[in-house]
Amino acid sequence: MKEPKSLFINENNLGLVTDFYQLTMAAGYFQNNMNQPATFELFVRKLPENRSFLVAAGLEQALHYLMHLHFSKEAVEYIKGHPVFKYVTKDFFNYLKKFRFSGDVYALPEGTPVFAEEPLIRITAPMIETQVVETYLLATINFQTLIASKAARVVLAAREREVVDFGSRRAHGPQAAVLAARACFIGGCLSTSNVLAGQQLGIPVMGTMAHSWVMAFDTEEEAFRAFHRVFPENTALLIDTYDTIRAACLVKELNIGDKLLAVRLDSGDILSLSKEVRKILDEAGLRHVKIMASGDLNEDKIDELMRNNAPIDLFGVGTEMVTSKDQPALGGIYKLVEQERCGERIPRMKFSEEKVFYPSCKQVYRFLNHSGVYQEDILGVDKEDMGGQPLLEPVMINGKMCKELPDLKDIQNRTLESLSCLPERLKRLKTADSYPVRKSPKLEEIRRYTEVMLKGR
Amino acid sequence: MKEPKSLFINENNLGLVTDFYQLTMAAGYFQNNMNQPATFELFVRKLPENRSFLVAAGLEQALHYLMHLHFSKEAVEYIKGHPVFKYVTKDFFNYLKKFRFSGDVYALPEGTPVFAEEPLIRITAPMIETQVVETYLLATINFQTLIASKAARVVLAAREREVVDFGSRRAHGPQAAVLAARACFIGGCLSTSNVLAGQQLGIPVMGTMAHSWVMAFDTEEEAFRAFHRVFPENTALLIDTYDTIRAACLVKELNIGDKLLAVRLDSGDILSLSKEVRKILDEAGLRHVKIMASGDLNEDKIDELMRNNAPIDLFGVGTEMVTSKDQPALGGIYKLVEQERCGERIPRMKFSEEKVFYPSCKQVYRFLNHSGVYQEDILGVDKEDMGGQPLLEPVMINGKMCKELPDLKDIQNRTLESLSCLPERLKRLKTADSYPVRKSPKLEEIRRYTEVMLKGR
Repeated sequence: MKEPKSLFINENNLGLVTDFYQLTMAAGYFQNNMNQPATFELFVRKLPENRSFLVAAGLEQALHYLMHLHFSKEAVEYIKGHPVFKYVTKDFFNYLKKFRFSGDVYALPEGTPVFAEEPLIRITAPMIETQVVETYLLATINFQTLIASKAARVVLAAREREVVDFGSRRAHGPQAAVLAARACFIGGCLSTSNVLAGQQLGIPVMGTMAHSWVMAFDTEEEAFRAFHRVFPENTALLIDTYDTIRAACLVKELNIGDKLLAVRLDSGDILSLSKEVRKILDEAGLRHVKIMASGDLNEDKIDELMRNNAPIDLFGVGTEMVTSKDQPALGGIYKLVEQERCGERIPRMKFSEEKVFYPSCKQVYRFLNHSGVYQEDILGVDKEDMGGQPLLEPVMINGKMCKELPDLKDIQNRTLESLSCLPERLKRLKTADSYPVRKSPKLEEIRRYTEVMLKGR
Repeated sequence: MKEPKSLFINENNLGLVTDFYQLTMAAGYFQNNMNQPATFELFVRKLPENRSFLVAAGLEQALHYLMHLHFSKEAVEYIKGHPVFKYVTKDFFNYLKKFRFSGDVYALPEGTPVFAEEPLIRITAPMIETQVVETYLLATINFQTLIASKAARVVLAAREREVVDFGSRRAHGPQAAVLAARACFIGGCLSTSNVLAGQQLGIPVMGTMAHSWVMAFDTEEEAFRAFHRVFPENTALLIDTYDTIRAACLVKELNIGDKLLAVRLDSGDILSLSKEVRKILDEAGLRHVKIMASGDLNEDKIDELMRNNAPIDLFGVGTEMVTSKDQPALGGIYKLVEQERCGERIPRMKFSEEKVFYPSCKQVYRFLNHSGVYQEDILGVDKEDMGGQPLLEPVMINGKMCKELPDLKDIQNRTLESLSCLPERLKRLKTADSYPVRKSPKLEEIRRYTEVMLKGR
């Protein structure tokens, strides 16, 4: 019987996790002796609607990829066997067999707020290497940045209340679930339901019980007691399986209140139910029992609940956060901005229609006002002496990591501290506002020059 | 220096790719001697807005999971070390060490159109097994079904024109890119840019060139010629880097037309550009050169282009398809519907607020009219003699696969043939319509009985 395919990504098949044209272009550069160093930058042309900032994330997995990327024997055979490669010399396939990423990487530290046109990552390497890595880098940085940015909005809406990632079942496949758990934590969530994320990354894991638990017993009381017997110090009860208020009354009669951690509401009118349940619990002397809410929550619903003083202590957020449902894709792009030719560095750009971007190897300089609030960024040329804080820092030189990876908790702290430095208008959940990203005079000059040069041809 | 984490899913960590509460419930069932057989069904309560049907997908990866799921030594250690498990006996951890999925699985064949309330997959196994697999099954089936359904819409919009999946860079991480490529193929796309999907699944891979290729040369002409030298029989030129019309004129002057396959438009007003470019090519005797369009396309834009007779031969569709951008999550749920207690099978349901579903082990019976068009489905009790075609079929018995996996191409054929049997009103891209899914009288009776029984407690 045929074995089902896992479709897992692993270190041995990384070389094929790319778009086909990266490989044809690689062969093309190779055959045309075009493997001089080039610089590509990964950035977002404009922010998604309803977003005033992004939170950079995904760099660690991008670095893992660059360190381990290679073409296995099977990968090379597969490529070689494709009819498109008919006229490509065997030197190219020998090159692929020895391929390793040998370039330099500059990046924004994960957890840094980032705006349109600002590079999240900048790669300088022989042209073929810069080209081949495009697809994987985009898939990795685009997704985690998308989710960390969405999670930050949810966390802002929840004020001081804890947000838990409950989204694994609606993520875009099993690996997306784990990546999303990481990105949600970077965005400020305190825990996740995803156990692998807990084990791999040390994110606190948590959970309550499912409706199936309650349904598996003849009565709700039996279900609650049975759970409490096994987890006497860690019981959180799901109380909406049949009738939330009836179940809340049952909770107080159970006499397990001392050690009861929480009750969870997952359906119905969460605002009024949370108030009623809080009253029932308080009157029974169960002030310490927390109320958790879940069920298709997002930043807007949470904001509404908080504005109406819903007595909710924890929010379990799933689908909307791990798919960034209102904006489910980040349009990050990866563009050639500079190229070495005969020892000279030539700025490159594209200017068809609306799709213009700035040429040359860039740096982002961030300026804070006297209270430490972000005032403006200047997109300048690399190593331009601009003042302000240069945000892109070297993380890999000649294919080797050159900077210790931060702990995930430190990345989260960076996000939370940075958010406190954002102008208030950027933290509004609705009516996104823009943050000034000016271009340095030198950068503008290079652009004008490049444009004239290209159009003049 | 600390190694970056890959966050890859592999056979050894499958046990942890679940929500934490599945494991606490597992311990709870274990300690309460509640491991009798149970049946869970995975279904969508209602279709996403703007969808009249779904295309079932993801079963093969779900079966891979069920075959390989186990708890490695490290996984068990991690779970055991979590403070919540403080009072759980070591028998449970020994049970986990030997855990294998031993149940029965009934499923809709991939590529089958499916509607709200109809189970895509039905699992019968000891309670703990049914519970633990929930998260992974949902993440797998939800995602691929979501994308296959979106792709089917795109393919319908494109009429007889080829649709290529170009979405890897915007998918939710590297594995989502490969899973999406599979699902897009199931939905009717003819090829993908994702090379791993090509190698693993035999999906035809294709690509043209990126803007970076064109930008890497001093002139467009040089870029085009250099590519053609390496791929003389497989050149497809991207012509929008600087000026689409100018580039189209250049194409005719290149004198490589004989073997030129296609030109690609990726920006600007695709409708008018495609007409102008077609005219330029035709006048130059290049009628055989195809026009490919890409750039944030979706089913609505493609439909609009086709209605306006855009002379486009291939559509490259990315972001919108692989994230199902207008509806980026499928709300599939997985519910306990029946449970064995003391040798008796007891139907189970939940009825809080809006979240009702039908109890008991079910089957979907599909009825076609005399022209072979889908007329209605009846959701009935398993093995009820209803007439119609029963859609759920056994794919795994006692944890072993019992049915040969279809080729991916056969799955795609099933989709395309099924779509031709859908009533026309369901194939409209706008104003989603509903398809009748009636419940059999027997099922209604069981529901009434179960509701009375539960409410009476």
